[in-house]
Amino acid sequence: MSFVRNQWYVAAYGTEVGRELFSRTVCGESILFWRTEAGEITAMADRCVHRRFPLSEKPSNLVGDTVVCGYHGFTYGADGGCVAVPGQTRIPRTARLATFPVRERDSFVWVWIGDKERADESLIPRAPWLDSPDHTTVWGMEPLKARFMLLVDNLLDLSHETYLHGGYIGTPEVAHTPITTEVDDETGVVYVSRHMDDAECPSFYAKSTGIEGRIVRWQDIEYFPPCLYLLHSRVAPVGVYPKDDGTDTDAFHVEVVYAITPETENTTHDFWAVARDFALDDQGVSDFLHDNNRTVVLQDVVALDKLEQVIATEPDGYQELSINIDTGGLAARRILKRMAEEGAPREQVAR
Amino acid sequence: MSFVRNQWYVAAYGTEVGRELFSRTVCGESILFWRTEAGEITAMADRCVHRRFPLSEKPSNLVGDTVVCGYHGFTYGADGGCVAVPGQTRIPRTARLATFPVRERDSFVWVWIGDKERADESLIPRAPWLDSPDHTTVWGMEPLKARFMLLVDNLLDLSHETYLHGGYIGTPEVAHTPITTEVDDETGVVYVSRHMDDAECPSFYAKSTGIEGRIVRWQDIEYFPPCLYLLHSRVAPVGVYPKDDGTDTDAFHVEVVYAITPETENTTHDFWAVARDFALDDQGVSDFLHDNNRTVVLQDVVALDKLEQVIATEPDGYQELSINIDTGGLAARRILKRMAEEGAPREQVAR
Amino acid sequence: MSFVRNQWYVAAYGTEVGRELFSRTVCGESILFWRTEAGEITAMADRCVHRRFPLSEKPSNLVGDTVVCGYHGFTYGADGGCVAVPGQTRIPRTARLATFPVRERDSFVWVWIGDKERADESLIPRAPWLDSPDHTTVWGMEPLKARFMLLVDNLLDLSHETYLHGGYIGTPEVAHTPITTEVDDETGVVYVSRHMDDAECPSFYAKSTGIEGRIVRWQDIEYFPPCLYLLHSRVAPVGVYPKDDGTDTDAFHVEVVYAITPETENTTHDFWAVARDFALDDQGVSDFLHDNNRTVVLQDVVALDKLEQVIATEPDGYQELSINIDTGGLAARRILKRMAEEGAPREQVAR
Repeated sequence: MSFVRNQWYVAAYGTEVGRELFSRTVCGESILFWRTEAGEITAMADRCVHRRFPLSEKPSNLVGDTVVCGYHGFTYGADGGCVAVPGQTRIPRTARLATFPVRERDSFVWVWIGDKERADESLIPRAPWLDSPDHTTVWGMEPLKARFMLLVDNLLDLSHETYLHGGYIGTPEVAHTPITTEVDDETGVVYVSRHMDDAECPSFYAKSTGIEGRIVRWQDIEYFPPCLYLLHSRVAPVGVYPKDDGTDTDAFHVEVVYAITPETENTTHDFWAVARDFALDDQGVSDFLHDNNRTVVLQDVVALDKLEQVIATEPDGYQELSINIDTGGLAARRILKRMAEEGAPREQVAR
Repeated sequence: MSFVRNQWYVAAYGTEVGRELFSRTVCGESILFWRTEAGEITAMADRCVHRRFPLSEKPSNLVGDTVVCGYHGFTYGADGGCVAVPGQTRIPRTARLATFPVRERDSFVWVWIGDKERADESLIPRAPWLDSPDHTTVWGMEPLKARFMLLVDNLLDLSHETYLHGGYIGTPEVAHTPITTEVDDETGVVYVSRHMDDAECPSFYAKSTGIEGRIVRWQDIEYFPPCLYLLHSRVAPVGVYPKDDGTDTDAFHVEVVYAITPETENTTHDFWAVARDFALDDQGVSDFLHDNNRTVVLQDVVALDKLEQVIATEPDGYQELSINIDTGGLAARRILKRMAEEGAPREQVAR
Repeated sequence: MSFVRNQWYVAAYGTEVGRELFSRTVCGESILFWRTEAGEITAMADRCVHRRFPLSEKPSNLVGDTVVCGYHGFTYGADGGCVAVPGQTRIPRTARLATFPVRERDSFVWVWIGDKERADESLIPRAPWLDSPDHTTVWGMEPLKARFMLLVDNLLDLSHETYLHGGYIGTPEVAHTPITTEVDDETGVVYVSRHMDDAECPSFYAKSTGIEGRIVRWQDIEYFPPCLYLLHSRVAPVGVYPKDDGTDTDAFHVEVVYAITPETENTTHDFWAVARDFALDDQGVSDFLHDNNRTVVLQDVVALDKLEQVIATEPDGYQELSINIDTGGLAARRILKRMAEEGAPREQVAR
């Protein structure tokens, strides 16, 4: 697949970007991020216009609100414009780095890949728990040597928890409980729900919530293609349900957030965060959830990297077999295909 | 060259396959091997029909006589048929792994690559010494980062022993003694013989047989394309020949067996075994022959891996120069070319 | 770019070639070098005509003035002719290694890549300081994972010293002082000069010459495409210039010599040497200049290897932006393009 353009993607956590030059590749674009002295975030091409030296490579460095190229000293301002070149005072009119619309939301740095005039910040999907005082969040990012779509597939079909994550977040009920899937064709959002009313409690929840015995476990997925994936996870002792007035104070809520960002055609940034509404100040619970979730993510990484290798050697036209559990993933593929067509540049850019 | 299909290939030693999932790639096909609880060997595609996860990868595992995929739990029986999928009781009719005809012979696991209906087990060439009580055998397998044909060339022209294996199994007489070559065009078997009547005894034979002084050394090769290579090696003190009645009890006989199995277009499994009819219970001799032969095989591996690298950078149409010693190798190439044409699928499979 | 053929290239330092088989790839040709017992240097294809084994690979070896292939014992004389093959006395008429015209000059081994009949040794450009008793020289060679042209660009625009080599040989004046560029269209030589009359003294010169305070610093480049680059560096205390009679005994002269030799399309041999006319017997100065210059060269290696990676991922038709400092580099590109066209074989060789 080619990249889905004219979309917002998570490029980083806000805490990753500061007064050091920071580079990350999004949809094949190598992008330089840094903050101005006023703390505003910038995003521009990570390649000097002169002899293509990466501006994120030492000895390139930040001087005030300018970036000085470490090869020949071409110097750029926060708007990407060149302000100095070596050996002459005249600065060529075309000496300017491409910039990218960029926004900070919910602890993420979102960047727009596509035509700048179409960058509407109201299109950025939200994950408000990540920087909410009512939640405590742990997070990380793991690089994936596998294509974006393999992670989309993985996250939209959680039946794999039973097998790939058995002993961590998987129990037999996840694979055995049927799902319901809905697609909002207008907004492109995919909803997948699995409500287990009498399930074994995996160690991930037993140790963090303190629940003993079997549980009600709800998994409600919202996927905002291409980048943002939310898993609303509700865990409570068997028999405990939300009250008629909608409150649900006897349950534990975990918001699992993934941002799925293509790096290249065959590699992906796997951002993950786990926000909880309980034990907010308990560092032990934070450490446990961080380490346990990272272990689970790395189990996915190993599996998906392997799948990418399998794809690399398989004959063209290889056909998968899909079943009911794949309904959400197949819907996502269909929507992403449509988005890719809608977002494609009028003249296809040669890559 | 493309693979020679519709042929039997050695995939493993029988001892390599048991109640653990075992994978080996033969002619580009990634194949899963395991034994049923009754000890019968199975061979099926090492790729789940659902999302192509390799069934040999953990946490996939064997439960009784079924394989459970470690990604989403698709479960397959010994005949490759799917017996369980997650989240539903109906199993899709097409959920079935391709299986491969497989036979155990002479300690090898042979697998048929091609159309199943053409898999005739009487076509499997034999190496009966390997599991005969009258012989003691040492063996191994070395992975080669070189194409199959380079190992065929290597083994059919033993003059290289003098140079590449000097001090191990090579002496000046090997390179200097002319060979005789015969080809059975009907069966496709290639015979190459070199009979040295007064030769230096290489350390390989001096230390294992105890012969002091010069020797009669006969090398009689039978190559059953594509996979099986037999070197009947006869060593005796100078002047000692088989008796008129055909018995040959005063000589030492070593049956050197290679199975040459393409893994991919550019990599090869180099199975080697050395069976002797003397010092049957002498572990010291076994250890010596194992280590010495493995050293010799690794000398070939280093040389052939290098040749593969040379080929990768050479211009198309590069021409080798061949001489008399190459008669057997050139005959083998001709027969393999014919076999490849005969074995090709009617509609060429896209790879 | 394709290689510039019908040119002399530096393949090695003379001290690298002796009575051991030595291989180096120049313009995609893998070449074997060794000296005869009389000390004469030879250059021939590093690939046995029989089964393409590299003659530089063990157990190939030199026996008198012949090379014996380590695979099957094909044996070649100093003129590339085959003198022995295994198993027969007749030697095929065509058994002959291609040889390359080769000359030793100024401590370098020069090899001619192209049609032998066009190899005119008077075309070899000279760097006489390297083996002159009036100079002391330190030298090395660093392998570059970047194309030849990136190093040509680098060396013809020394404004990068200020940034990439700041603290070593760079000071602010290098980037800020304009250059003059001349091209001799007949000989193809490119001249670039930068004369600084009041410059900071970089540690490279301060520590080696003992000058304290600011300096006159002249950089006069002569580039003899494709391979030889000379930087005549003159350093003296501020106000000290050559005398009217042309003598210049109060200045320090350093001849920085590079030989830029393509290995493959995307890798380069970066030979560097630093010859000085002062402190001739001071080993401390030699050690300092060697280590300091090697550090500088490795800074270039890191930067150019990175540029090669950037080029590998950029869209076709990517456009650089050039300014005045690039005049020399652009002239070099133009001349090299013309040379490539003139030197191309009549029938283009398939690579």
